[in-house]
Amino acid sequence: MKLVRYGQPGQERPGLVDADGTIRDLSAVVPDIAGAALSKARLAEIAKMDPKTLPVVPAGTRLGPCVGNVRNFVAVGLNFADHAAETGAEIPKEPILFNKAPSCIVGPNDDVVLPRGSKKTDWEVELAVVIGERASYVPEHDALSVVAGYCICNDVSEREYQIERGGQWMKGKGCPTFGPLGPWLVTADEVADVQNLGMWLDVNGERMQTGSTKTMIFDVVKLVSYISHFMVLEPGDVITTGTPPGVGLGMKPPRFLKAGDVVSLGIDGLGVQKQTVVAYHG
Amino acid sequence: MKLVRYGQPGQERPGLVDADGTIRDLSAVVPDIAGAALSKARLAEIAKMDPKTLPVVPAGTRLGPCVGNVRNFVAVGLNFADHAAETGAEIPKEPILFNKAPSCIVGPNDDVVLPRGSKKTDWEVELAVVIGERASYVPEHDALSVVAGYCICNDVSEREYQIERGGQWMKGKGCPTFGPLGPWLVTADEVADVQNLGMWLDVNGERMQTGSTKTMIFDVVKLVSYISHFMVLEPGDVITTGTPPGVGLGMKPPRFLKAGDVVSLGIDGLGVQKQTVVAYHG
Repeated sequence: MKLVRYGQPGQERPGLVDADGTIRDLSAVVPDIAGAALSKARLAEIAKMDPKTLPVVPAGTRLGPCVGNVRNFVAVGLNFADHAAETGAEIPKEPILFNKAPSCIVGPNDDVVLPRGSKKTDWEVELAVVIGERASYVPEHDALSVVAGYCICNDVSEREYQIERGGQWMKGKGCPTFGPLGPWLVTADEVADVQNLGMWLDVNGERMQTGSTKTMIFDVVKLVSYISHFMVLEPGDVITTGTPPGVGLGMKPPRFLKAGDVVSLGIDGLGVQKQTVVAYHG
Repeated sequence: MKLVRYGQPGQERPGLVDADGTIRDLSAVVPDIAGAALSKARLAEIAKMDPKTLPVVPAGTRLGPCVGNVRNFVAVGLNFADHAAETGAEIPKEPILFNKAPSCIVGPNDDVVLPRGSKKTDWEVELAVVIGERASYVPEHDALSVVAGYCICNDVSEREYQIERGGQWMKGKGCPTFGPLGPWLVTADEVADVQNLGMWLDVNGERMQTGSTKTMIFDVVKLVSYISHFMVLEPGDVITTGTPPGVGLGMKPPRFLKAGDVVSLGIDGLGVQKQTVVAYHG
């Protein structure tokens, strides 16, 4: 299934995409695509429904982030060998974890706002894992059983804040609008091989990132298990799993986003996001 | 006011502590001590009530964390000059921010569980700030207007995970039970000078940490304003503001918690926490 959340920011309603690509309203079935609705049991119930019996949502309705009420937005750094190389970092021996503030999450096609005074805002196409069941010390052979599904995340990053402002990376990772999620939460059963998905990102139509989940250093199974040894993962938590080569920071000279730029990104089977970059006003 | 959440884990109900120290049930007034209930307007409404008209909660009822549904649990590192010195770190030029997984939050007197195989679990008494209003780019002169109140946080930390396991600190900061909050959320109006509160922490009755919020490098006003420039803060978010000297890591030789240890900690006007350290079973 392809699950969505649609409507105005903060008032999104749950929906699903039917075989024709039409969005159908799930409001009568689940309160939100969030928390307990992501459990295997609840997803199985939704899957049993005939989408044609559900109300049609008008075409053109805004999509919100495909998962609601995210509490823990964990990110993995330098998880593609080529990307580690382009940033001049060594291949990590263990996954590098950091956090994105959940308040940075927006819809897949919402504007990305440059933080006030920002000069180094960068892009990162990533595969995000949406957790469906509580997970603590989950062994690798069980790790996929706690995964509800997958979506695209643009792990937007302010490199000055991340690297030059003292301490930990999260300072440059959670600015408002820095976490577009969607368009769809694709349930795990629809993703045949999560470690063989092509990934790409364009800026103004120019290809910047090309990659595949095949070249992850630590795969989804390893990451979910590993992270669950350091914290309890809860339904609705999101793990974004790192980016392939081609970020602005790695270019010579580095290249960053400016107001008016249009960023498009996609992952095989997970759809496409498209954001316009705008200046901060406020 | 002193606000509490009481009852079994995950089923806590809101309450307040009356002038006699009795807990009164606020369930009929607010759904939880969380989110929108922390706004100035809602807190003012609660303050108008006569506590004697509210049902008494039996003495001895478990206290949960004093704020519910925390989404963003931001922590500040090395924010006391003496503590930075004891860990061998330089005084930071800007606040160092990291994140604790919200799933680590527990009640003030709940057990602290040593992570599986942990050898370096440490204590940190800290002043936590509870956000009551949405805050983005809030100037320093307005920063206190978004603060609902204060509580104690034991920023329990696994030093091997934090420092020796690659990358970012959050790996050692969000293990289950690593975030006791409470006993009370003391509303800001009851704290005359938040930068002049004594702090202490004992292990098995032996004084380990003695300090004061007076010696913070970056004060609450600065921290709230600063953090709101990097992420949107939302009602119910918690900022824990750093620890004074006396952590186990700074001792020669270092000293860490073991099963059976009892940790007590307090901050002037914010009450006392007491945790028993237990081994992981699972």
